[in-house]
Amino acid sequence: MREVAIIGIGNTKFGELWDRSFRDIAVEAGVKAIEDAGISGDEIEALYGGNMTAGGFVGQEHIGALIADYAGLAGLHIPATRVEAACASGGLALHLAVLAVASGWYDIVIAAGVEKMTDVGEDVANDLLVSSVDREWEAICGATLPSLFAQMARAHMERYNTTVEQMAKVAVKNHSNAIHNPMAQYRRGITIDAVLASPVIAEPLHMLDCSSMADGASAVVLCPAEHARKYTDSPVYVKASTQASDTIALHDRRDITTMDATVFAAREAYKRASIEPSQISLAEVHDSYTIAEIIAIEDLGFFEKGKGGVATWEGETEIGGKIAINPSGGLKACGHPLGATGIRQVTEIVTQLRGEAGKRQVPDAHFGLAHNIGGTGGTAIIHILSN
Amino acid sequence: MREVAIIGIGNTKFGELWDRSFRDIAVEAGVKAIEDAGISGDEIEALYGGNMTAGGFVGQEHIGALIADYAGLAGLHIPATRVEAACASGGLALHLAVLAVASGWYDIVIAAGVEKMTDVGEDVANDLLVSSVDREWEAICGATLPSLFAQMARAHMERYNTTVEQMAKVAVKNHSNAIHNPMAQYRRGITIDAVLASPVIAEPLHMLDCSSMADGASAVVLCPAEHARKYTDSPVYVKASTQASDTIALHDRRDITTMDATVFAAREAYKRASIEPSQISLAEVHDSYTIAEIIAIEDLGFFEKGKGGVATWEGETEIGGKIAINPSGGLKACGHPLGATGIRQVTEIVTQLRGEAGKRQVPDAHFGLAHNIGGTGGTAIIHILSN
Repeated sequence: MREVAIIGIGNTKFGELWDRSFRDIAVEAGVKAIEDAGISGDEIEALYGGNMTAGGFVGQEHIGALIADYAGLAGLHIPATRVEAACASGGLALHLAVLAVASGWYDIVIAAGVEKMTDVGEDVANDLLVSSVDREWEAICGATLPSLFAQMARAHMERYNTTVEQMAKVAVKNHSNAIHNPMAQYRRGITIDAVLASPVIAEPLHMLDCSSMADGASAVVLCPAEHARKYTDSPVYVKASTQASDTIALHDRRDITTMDATVFAAREAYKRASIEPSQISLAEVHDSYTIAEIIAIEDLGFFEKGKGGVATWEGETEIGGKIAINPSGGLKACGHPLGATGIRQVTEIVTQLRGEAGKRQVPDAHFGLAHNIGGTGGTAIIHILSN
Repeated sequence: MREVAIIGIGNTKFGELWDRSFRDIAVEAGVKAIEDAGISGDEIEALYGGNMTAGGFVGQEHIGALIADYAGLAGLHIPATRVEAACASGGLALHLAVLAVASGWYDIVIAAGVEKMTDVGEDVANDLLVSSVDREWEAICGATLPSLFAQMARAHMERYNTTVEQMAKVAVKNHSNAIHNPMAQYRRGITIDAVLASPVIAEPLHMLDCSSMADGASAVVLCPAEHARKYTDSPVYVKASTQASDTIALHDRRDITTMDATVFAAREAYKRASIEPSQISLAEVHDSYTIAEIIAIEDLGFFEKGKGGVATWEGETEIGGKIAINPSGGLKACGHPLGATGIRQVTEIVTQLRGEAGKRQVPDAHFGLAHNIGGTGGTAIIHILSN
């Protein structure tokens, strides 16, 4: 297997993009990534697109062909593949793109993630969101994403004395980071009091514990590491790209205070990258809910199980702390266009490892990790990158 | 790249399976394939699932994790990937599975395709079907799949003097073949007169020119060719696995009597397999509509452009003819559960190359080809297999 490098990244603004269409934002992100890589579109040999449910949100399937077509690549007849793993669709698209280049099958490929969520009403959107969990055993019984994460939060509070204030601190930190991120949906600070005063969505989770629905698209361009310096002075290398699964339903897990898919994917990722968690300077983790970030930073080995809440409260996950978690603002403040998130996370790691993150720059970053999950953790995708 | 072999296959019955669920049929096909391969489930290292729109038909996304879970593989935490390329989703799942084994990333993987189409009303189903074409420029204007294929048929008739009787002959042949296929939805013969007397769906296509909605699932187990004889005395080898794209909308094509995605994928497939079209003994081609089979057998190089109708009429595509096309009965008579079809086609080629096809056996078959398209040809996936 060859080593793979990322040579270009692109994001749309994330948010309520009512004047933009699904295909429009997908193409914008792709074109930005291609321009950032300094290649021409006709050098692209294959496209991998991550999207959760455009069928539901905009009535469109056949997403791979659609994006290739509207990106002007139809005349090349390149392979265009759409993958879906709920909210981990973006990470999964990148994982397949990495495999395609690592194996020598293709040289230059693009991986993109996209979701257009704000063109439907709230009821429709909520129903589409629960298609990421077990429809027959969870959703039909009334479970929603927040209610399932609330169960995880309750169990974590019970077992490890995690507090609502510690969870709220995740949101406060991520909003604070996003102030310096131009593509983020919410670029304003919030306070612990504001989180706790916001409406309860599913006790103990408040509205400001939850990431938001958004439209957005992100893309990265990959090539073999040995060719990367032909295109850029600041290549970022993919040291590991791993994927694991778990039961789709939460009630079938052995322990709901941990996500085994994350644990398995992380173990494999550290092995492939030949590093320890302590060597990671920054991580974009899947904070779809604040409790999810606390569980993730434990499962990824950054903090001991049960200590994620305390570590967050004490500022260890801030930029300048022990490890910078979600320097971009995370899903919480960037917004969470489902299929785009996994790629957006990686664009942040690349930006940081290039030293181009401006006021949110993590100093002396060498290894960064991106952690993307589907649903309540039925899928986990992990990438470790280095400069 | 290593050569890859297919060591196990499994299909459910295709048809209106009202007493079976989506997950239920997916697992049945997978278990059959695993049993056919003589392996145990815990030898599976990764799963690739093809599905077009379970989000629409059964309200469920996160299909990879779901299938792995209900197949009893959740405890292994294996990578479980769902891909979508409209009606080519099954073929695409196999393509990725082949790459995963060929590259050495995994040894034993399973590729499955599944669709549950009959649990919704006809209006819902028709709307989901057009999500495979360009929603904004075709479907919103009222175009349906049959109407788009009808345009291709009209153009083919105009340019090449193809007749409705020649198209009807495709359906007659495929129904005749399916009589001997136990998993087919329709196991009864039809006549040219019956096709032409059936209701017009979109002129010149009659009801019996169209493949049918169905529930069904199919699966295959792959391993490196060098290990295949440990598992089976009749391995079937993957000589080529290729993918190409085209514009998603029909009106953007340079010529609607041909599908360039098929032409490009076929060219690459013959090159990789180092064979000529004339060496293929049998092919399962994507006869979603009868005209699609005529176009396919031309684009695949079996017959000169414009001669597909005549060749069909003269019996050259029957079992025992120049090349057996759709000995299984094709999409027309097997039924077309969208995401399952691409894998089902390959199970037929494997059955034939093993010499296990009974009364529909193609004599002396050595090379077989499977051709799976998405929508009106925005995606094409081709596999060439040999014994």
